[in-house]
Amino acid sequence: MMLLSVLQANAAVLDVEANLRTIDEAANQAARAGAGLLLTPELFPVGYAPLRLRSELDPATLPALRESLAGIARRNGIGLVYSLPAEAAVAADAAEAAGAAGPADEGGDGSRDMDRAGGHGWHISASLVDASGAELLRYAKVHLFGDEERTAFVPAGEPPAVVDFLGIRTSLLICYDIEFPEAARAAAARGAELLLVPTALSEGYGAVPQVLVRARALESQLNVAYANHCGAEDSYTFGGGSVVAGPDGGLLAAAGNAPELLFATVGTEAVRAARDDVPYLRERRPELYREWEARLAPGPARPAGHLA
Amino acid sequence: MMLLSVLQANAAVLDVEANLRTIDEAANQAARAGAGLLLTPELFPVGYAPLRLRSELDPATLPALRESLAGIARRNGIGLVYSLPAEAAVAADAAEAAGAAGPADEGGDGSRDMDRAGGHGWHISASLVDASGAELLRYAKVHLFGDEERTAFVPAGEPPAVVDFLGIRTSLLICYDIEFPEAARAAAARGAELLLVPTALSEGYGAVPQVLVRARALESQLNVAYANHCGAEDSYTFGGGSVVAGPDGGLLAAAGNAPELLFATVGTEAVRAARDDVPYLRERRPELYREWEARLAPGPARPAGHLA
Repeated sequence: MMLLSVLQANAAVLDVEANLRTIDEAANQAARAGAGLLLTPELFPVGYAPLRLRSELDPATLPALRESLAGIARRNGIGLVYSLPAEAAVAADAAEAAGAAGPADEGGDGSRDMDRAGGHGWHISASLVDASGAELLRYAKVHLFGDEERTAFVPAGEPPAVVDFLGIRTSLLICYDIEFPEAARAAAARGAELLLVPTALSEGYGAVPQVLVRARALESQLNVAYANHCGAEDSYTFGGGSVVAGPDGGLLAAAGNAPELLFATVGTEAVRAARDDVPYLRERRPELYREWEARLAPGPARPAGHLA
Repeated sequence: MMLLSVLQANAAVLDVEANLRTIDEAANQAARAGAGLLLTPELFPVGYAPLRLRSELDPATLPALRESLAGIARRNGIGLVYSLPAEAAVAADAAEAAGAAGPADEGGDGSRDMDRAGGHGWHISASLVDASGAELLRYAKVHLFGDEERTAFVPAGEPPAVVDFLGIRTSLLICYDIEFPEAARAAAARGAELLLVPTALSEGYGAVPQVLVRARALESQLNVAYANHCGAEDSYTFGGGSVVAGPDGGLLAAAGNAPELLFATVGTEAVRAARDDVPYLRERRPELYREWEARLAPGPARPAGHLA
């Protein structure tokens, strides 16, 4: 069992110092309450403003910013999930280094993305660091939302990985990713019991946390925490509504549209109980799903039987 | 736009005459209200009792029962979705006759199922007939729920097909299928705008219609109608809670736990508007999902690149 804290707050676009102060204060408060982890919203340390980030944020400042965030975790003795731009080259290299099925599969999509962006594209990334500041997991957003994101960033192609964090198998997705059942499924199929999702969701889309996030939790029987911005940042107005959903699809915590530090206790027992009651993950039929998708794929006919 | 009616009722196990009367009365009432289609619950004409159906229902009676149901549609001048056992051999033959990628792919799963059941297994099927009684669509349940269903029936392997019904692209799933996002996605990826789901959901699982059915509608931006039994049938007690969800995830109609004939207007305009606002189906990345699933598949390594 772990006490999880979720920061819902308003970021100041490109005022890194102010945003780090907000995260530091939340980390302090969360740690004093006994939380093992603080989840913060998408791109919170720099503010959510894709085009301005792309044109005004100097990538040379990113390593020091990551070190400041690791310092916040270390100083407060708490795990931290933060989201920042990350150079796509690094992500693609990391994917190839981790290569399981060979570079043609593993780095394929990332490489194409990099070429498209002239070799120096940015992903939107999220990192999980532990209370010593060590990075345990880095994920890059697969589903970019809207024209501004697609102009400023390149989409990644790696599935969410899973690590053990304080005894809970933990994974990351970012914002629009969680609206696609396939992304949460990929984490669940890799063993995730807790899915941490930094987001930047505009107001007017309350059904995303209230329906989709709860469904992701229920259909894969895991905990999902979803941390949103609130208030205005440049041209965007965010809806708040951050939630933590449990493996039965119920809400363990839910915010309104003002700044708030949410708390919820998450663990593996409720996950196991739900999966014993209705074994969704065991009763999936992934070989059929792949075949069904393959039949729809464009391009030349595939040789008969190779997907069976 | 079509007025859709959804029957929530209590079936009498193996009292076909009583159940047909219930359907006939609902069809009459729905047609008089101007509905174009009546959706009825899973296995309603025979009652939901897998083991008794398997041992006591004579398959030789099924063709006449289907003809009676077609007669109800014809006589009342209304489309009808009903659910019955169907011989797996027929379903597998039909799949092979429709064969696209060759028998190794198309009939593969069904054939293995039949072998396992000694060549005369039953699927749980659902049929859509039009107001002339002609069968437009037949679907067989892919995800069987629980030990009794798995003892009495064999799972099917074909994805849900889509037909035009009164100007709306319409598809079928059955009960447990809708709890798997992959099944509804397969229908949506094939163009479905309306998903009709006969179900038999026990009480205590209200999150299925309230969270999962709404999520299926929202994440694929289509209408989903979900028709449940209510009351007791042999050892089962059903929870009612039938719903119609729209492409924004909102409920267009919802029943309590008593018998009820629900009505909702469904159409293609709300589907198009939702898909224009947030293009989930266009922004899926199915080639990645297949690759992600393939990396998890058991068995010998596949040749590099053939899934790329």
